[in-house]
Amino acid sequence: MKIGVLGTGIVGQTIASKLVALGHDVKMGSRSAGGEKATEWVKKAGAKASEGTFADAASFGELVFNCTSGAGSLEALRAAGAKNLEGKVLIDIANPLDFSKGMPPTLFSGNTDSLGEAAQRELPGTRVVKTLNTVNCNVMVDPSRVAGEHDMFVAGNDAGAKSQVSEILKTWFGWKSVIDLGDISAARGTESYLPLWIRMWGALKTADFNIKVVR
Amino acid sequence: MKIGVLGTGIVGQTIASKLVALGHDVKMGSRSAGGEKATEWVKKAGAKASEGTFADAASFGELVFNCTSGAGSLEALRAAGAKNLEGKVLIDIANPLDFSKGMPPTLFSGNTDSLGEAAQRELPGTRVVKTLNTVNCNVMVDPSRVAGEHDMFVAGNDAGAKSQVSEILKTWFGWKSVIDLGDISAARGTESYLPLWIRMWGALKTADFNIKVVR
Repeated sequence: MKIGVLGTGIVGQTIASKLVALGHDVKMGSRSAGGEKATEWVKKAGAKASEGTFADAASFGELVFNCTSGAGSLEALRAAGAKNLEGKVLIDIANPLDFSKGMPPTLFSGNTDSLGEAAQRELPGTRVVKTLNTVNCNVMVDPSRVAGEHDMFVAGNDAGAKSQVSEILKTWFGWKSVIDLGDISAARGTESYLPLWIRMWGALKTADFNIKVVR
Repeated sequence: MKIGVLGTGIVGQTIASKLVALGHDVKMGSRSAGGEKATEWVKKAGAKASEGTFADAASFGELVFNCTSGAGSLEALRAAGAKNLEGKVLIDIANPLDFSKGMPPTLFSGNTDSLGEAAQRELPGTRVVKTLNTVNCNVMVDPSRVAGEHDMFVAGNDAGAKSQVSEILKTWFGWKSVIDLGDISAARGTESYLPLWIRMWGALKTADFNIKVVR
C-alpha cells in the first residue's frame, strides 16, 4: 500500500521504518522537501522510501499517519491539505504535549477539546482515527516489547475507518487487543492520559510499558 | 482506629461503611451537623458510626479521608480546619470533575495543577496522600470485584504517609499492588486519567474495571 507519514521525528521515523519493513511504499512528509532528517531516513530505509512536503506525503498516501509533534500538528495538517486527504483514513498519533514550561510536559488542549477533534474539524472530509498515542513509539510497532496482555484504544467518528485501523494494528503491528472508545471526542480520554503515562514512566524507569484494562 | 470521613455522598458512605465494618470508629463530616444523609448513614451503620461538621470529623479522626465532591473539596478542607488536620494523614480521593457543562464531565483543575496539590497547599501541616480516585467507589473498598491483577496508585510528599496508606489499602481494603508515582504533583496524572476512565466506562458498560500496568 502507498502510505504517507507526516513528521520526521522519532515517532514518524519508527512508524515509517516499520511500514517499509512490512513492504509498503512510504513517503515521509515534512515542512519542506529535502530536509536533513527525511533525506537521511530515506537513505537508510531504501527503495520503498521517499520524502517530500506534507502535501506530497498526503497526496501520495492511500492511508496517512499523523506523527507530527502536537504543537505543530494543525499547521502540518493544513499544509498537507484537506483536498489531498479527502476521503482517506488519517491515523492520528500526535499528543498535545507542551514542553515550553519544562519537564514534565503539560497538555495544551485542555480536557474540553482534543487534538484528535481539532484534526477532524480541520479535515471534515477525512476519516480521523485516534490511536497509538498512549504508548512509546517502539511499543506502537512492536507491542511484544511489553510482556503479557495489554490494550490499545481507537477513537473516531467512522466505524469503517476504526475497523480498518484495528485490523492494521493487529495484522501489521501485532496488537492483540484493541478497544473502541467511541467517537473522536474520546481522544480527550487518551490524550488526557498522558500526564499519568509520564508519571508511570518516571516510576517504572522504562518506556516499555502499557496498561491492560481489567474487568 | 478513630477515622474521619469528609463527605456524605456515595464515595463517603462506601468508604465510611467499609471502615465501620472493619471495626473502626468513624465520624462522617458534612457542612452542618445533623444533615439528612449523614444521620441516615449513622442509623444504618450502627454504634461505631457518628456524624458532625467537617471540623468535628477532622478533629475526631487520627486518620481522615477526603471523600467530598471535587468542586466542594477545598471549601470542605478549609471548614475542616488546618489545625484539626495538623500532622495527620489525609487520604484524598476527590476528583476535580465539573458536571456543570453536562455529561461526560470535564476537569476543572487543568493539567498544570491538581486537586491533590491544592489540598496539600491548603493544609501544609497535613500529610496528603492522593489515592483511590482512579476506580469506582465499590472497587476502592473491594478490589476483588475486578478479576485478576490490577493496580492502585499513591502520590504524596511524605514517604512515611504513603507507606502507611499503602498498608491500609492492602490490609484493610484488599489491594494487592500499589504503585508509588512520586510526590503530590503526580496527582495531576491520576486526576487527568479520569476522562479516559469515563470513556472506558462507556465502552465497557460497567464501573467494575481497573487498569493493570504491564511491563
